[in-house]
Parts: sequence; structure tokens; C-alpha cells
Amino acid sequence: MDERKRVEVCFTPDEYAYYKDEFEIVVVIDVLRATSAMCAAFENGIKAIIPVPTVEEAMEYKQKGYLAGAERKGQIVEGFDFGNSPFSYMNPDFVGKEVVLSTTNGTRSLDVAKDAEIVVVGSLLNVDALSEWLLKQDKNVLCLCSGWQGKFNLEDTICAGAISDFLLSSGKFTANEDSSIAAKYLFQSASKNYLGFLKSSSHRRRLKNLNLNEDIKYCLTPNQTEVIPVLKDGKLVKLEA
Amino acid sequence: MDERKRVEVCFTPDEYAYYKDEFEIVVVIDVLRATSAMCAAFENGIKAIIPVPTVEEAMEYKQKGYLAGAERKGQIVEGFDFGNSPFSYMNPDFVGKEVVLSTTNGTRSLDVAKDAEIVVVGSLLNVDALSEWLLKQDKNVLCLCSGWQGKFNLEDTICAGAISDFLLSSGKFTANEDSSIAAKYLFQSASKNYLGFLKSSSHRRRLKNLNLNEDIKYCLTPNQTEVIPVLKDGKLVKLEA
Repeated sequence: MDERKRVEVCFTPDEYAYYKDEFEIVVVIDVLRATSAMCAAFENGIKAIIPVPTVEEAMEYKQKGYLAGAERKGQIVEGFDFGNSPFSYMNPDFVGKEVVLSTTNGTRSLDVAKDAEIVVVGSLLNVDALSEWLLKQDKNVLCLCSGWQGKFNLEDTICAGAISDFLLSSGKFTANEDSSIAAKYLFQSASKNYLGFLKSSSHRRRLKNLNLNEDIKYCLTPNQTEVIPVLKDGKLVKLEA
Repeated sequence: MDERKRVEVCFTPDEYAYYKDEFEIVVVIDVLRATSAMCAAFENGIKAIIPVPTVEEAMEYKQKGYLAGAERKGQIVEGFDFGNSPFSYMNPDFVGKEVVLSTTNGTRSLDVAKDAEIVVVGSLLNVDALSEWLLKQDKNVLCLCSGWQGKFNLEDTICAGAISDFLLSSGKFTANEDSSIAAKYLFQSASKNYLGFLKSSSHRRRLKNLNLNEDIKYCLTPNQTEVIPVLKDGKLVKLEA
């Protein structure tokens, strides 16, 4: 009998239903930009992030006095002061605070995965630290990509491929799904040059139109932090080693 | 303005809703094995295939005297004489006949795509003939992969990548979706050795357990026919040039 744990990749939140309940750990990934912003936020001393699926919920929190952000289609929603740019969270005002956030894709994945035993946040920014932590847990791992408006996206898949490639190389994990094999191949093709590989990506083109090149360069630069955000009672907090 | 037509890849029938109505031509792909069997059937002189989504419908046709087949989880359903093995359709009894077929994944994709202007059937068996025909149509093309029980699969994606790679190389087509870019990369990685690339594929392992190695070798050998099955009034017939 195969004693290895599984590491698999799910391309979109819609497909999560097919994977649910088989994995103790779900890694939620939205490289451009929600989960990158979350990693940056904890690196910069935020206390907690309350992810909410709708703009309305984010506004209710704001009216109660919370720092609250919302992003849709890559832009800050009217009535909010920030969205999912990682640079927003480098503001000293956020240190030690609880912040509410609703984003197009990333908070939706957190919402579908919330009943898993352990939900952590991954991005290229914390990819090595997260992968090493996952290796130590001895649990089945699902990398849940957020995609783009329901569809597959490349940058989340490549990040998921990086995590699964690391775990598979250890010999302690195995992958059964074709999506996991594809993610590993795409990561291996991309690993030498993320920006070059993603140049033709639809999402990157969309963000370029929004003048977000600085955000993209930041989000695609691996290993800028060792923080691992983890979901506890509906809030993201920093995992304590 | 970009005058090029689009060629995109949709990984699963569930995701078709996100692509619907933007494409005049939908190419339905289920390499292992439904659409390969359909191509083999027309190459061998069948008159028409009536694809039905449920086993019950296939049984109703059988009771009316039709030749009817059904496959679920890779095996022939009890009470039927054939499923989706291409070799079943090389039977001289099928020449000139209308045959009813229900399969796990392939007939479901045909069902979700049926309202598109033109629905054709693709597999590696007819990939070059189909690609050349598509190039001449000057219409937007969606390659709809059937996947495996709702999930992404490699062999359909590689076939879709082969078609889109051909159309993109002509300079007359463009691709905007990340799924299309990924399919092209995976095809380029696989193109020298389909069997080797798919060795680690979950689907291939599943079929190996069912002793279907001959079917797999056949289905993964490109360009064994020039027939293009097309959906007309709910039946698949051979496209006349």
C-alpha cells in the first residue's frame, strides 16, 4: 500500500466540489493579487484579515469603523480606500490592525475552502517557506487556484506547480490527478523566468492595462517572506511556528 | 483592430458556460475514448451516431431495435454489447447504420455544446484534417475538452493544444485565455511522444487497469483518418467536403 500523502492541484473554485473532503490542508492561491497582498500584509505586521465574499459585507464592516478594502475586476471598488495591491498593506497604519477584504477571486476560494481542517494562504512570495512547512505536516494537500472569473489562470497554476513539485521531489508525496501533472509541467517550463512565461498570459495583459506593472513584478518575485497566513475562526492570522 | 479569429480551449464541460455564445464552431474532444471511437466509426462507414446523455435513453433506443452502446467508468454498461472502444465500430454490421451511444464524458460535452452554430468531433485520429478544415472556415473556434468526471484531463488538453497550435501558427488566429496558452505549452511538451507524456496520466493508469492498452495506443496515434463528424439535428454525421 502506498503510504505517501497526496498533493493535488485544483484549477478553479468551481471544481473544488470534486476534491472536497479528501484533503486535510487546502492552500488557497491567488497570485495576482489577493493572496500575495495577504502575505505582504502579514510580513508588514498586520494582526488579522477578515476575508468576506461580497462588497456589501466589506462595506458593513467599514461602516462599523474597520479598515476595509474591496477589489473587483482589478480595481478598487468605489467607496473603499484600498483593494488587493500588496503595496497598500505596507502602510504603517495597518500594523497591529484587523482589516476586512473582499476580492474578485481570492476571497471566493477562501470561502469555498473554509470547512477544510486547515486552510493556509500561498503565493510566490512565501512559496518556499510554505512548501517546507507542508512537507513537515504529513497530511494530504490540495492547492486551490483562484483562477480568473471562474476560468483557469496560469500564474496560480504555476505557483501550485512549484509547491507540488517540491513536495513530490521529497518522495513523501504522490499526485494522481492530471491537473497536478499539468501544473508541475507548466511550473517546470516557467521556473527560470516567471515574468517571461506569463508575458502572454491574459491576466497579465489585463493588469498591464490597469498600470499595475509594479504590483505584477512584486507578486512574481518568489520568497520575499516566510509568513504563512492561516484561517482561524473566519479570520486570517499569522501561523505561529 | 485585431481581425484575427479566436481559438480557445475550455478544459471541462462545466466551464463551457463561461465560453458559450462567443464561438461559432465548437470542437468536442474526448480522446480516451468517445470522440476517437466516433472518428473510427465514420472512417469505417457508419451512417450516423445518435449521442444521448443517459444510459436510460440509450436503452430505450435499443428496445426500439437500434444498435445502441453505453459506457460508464471505462466499461460497457450491463445490457449493452458495446461501449466506446474504437475497435467495436470496425464491425461490418455497423456499415451504413445509425448507432446510439452514451458515454461518461464525451456525450455530455456534445450535449452542453449542442446549441452552437457548428459542432464537430475532434480526436488525435483526425487532428490534421480537422485543423486544416477549421483554418478554412474563418470562424471563432472553441476546443471543448470532455475531461474526466468533471475534472481536467491531459489527453484532451493536448489534442486541443495541437489544434490551437496549428491555427495560431497560421497567423490568422489569436488566443486570449490562459487555458489556451497552457494547452499549447502542454502540447509542445508532448508532441514528440504522446504515449510517454501520458504515461503518468491518471486516466491512462485507470484504463490500463481495465486492460485497454490496445485502445490507448490506437487513440493516441495521430492522423489515421480524414473524416470529421459533425452534429446535424441531434445526430452525428460525416461532414461532406
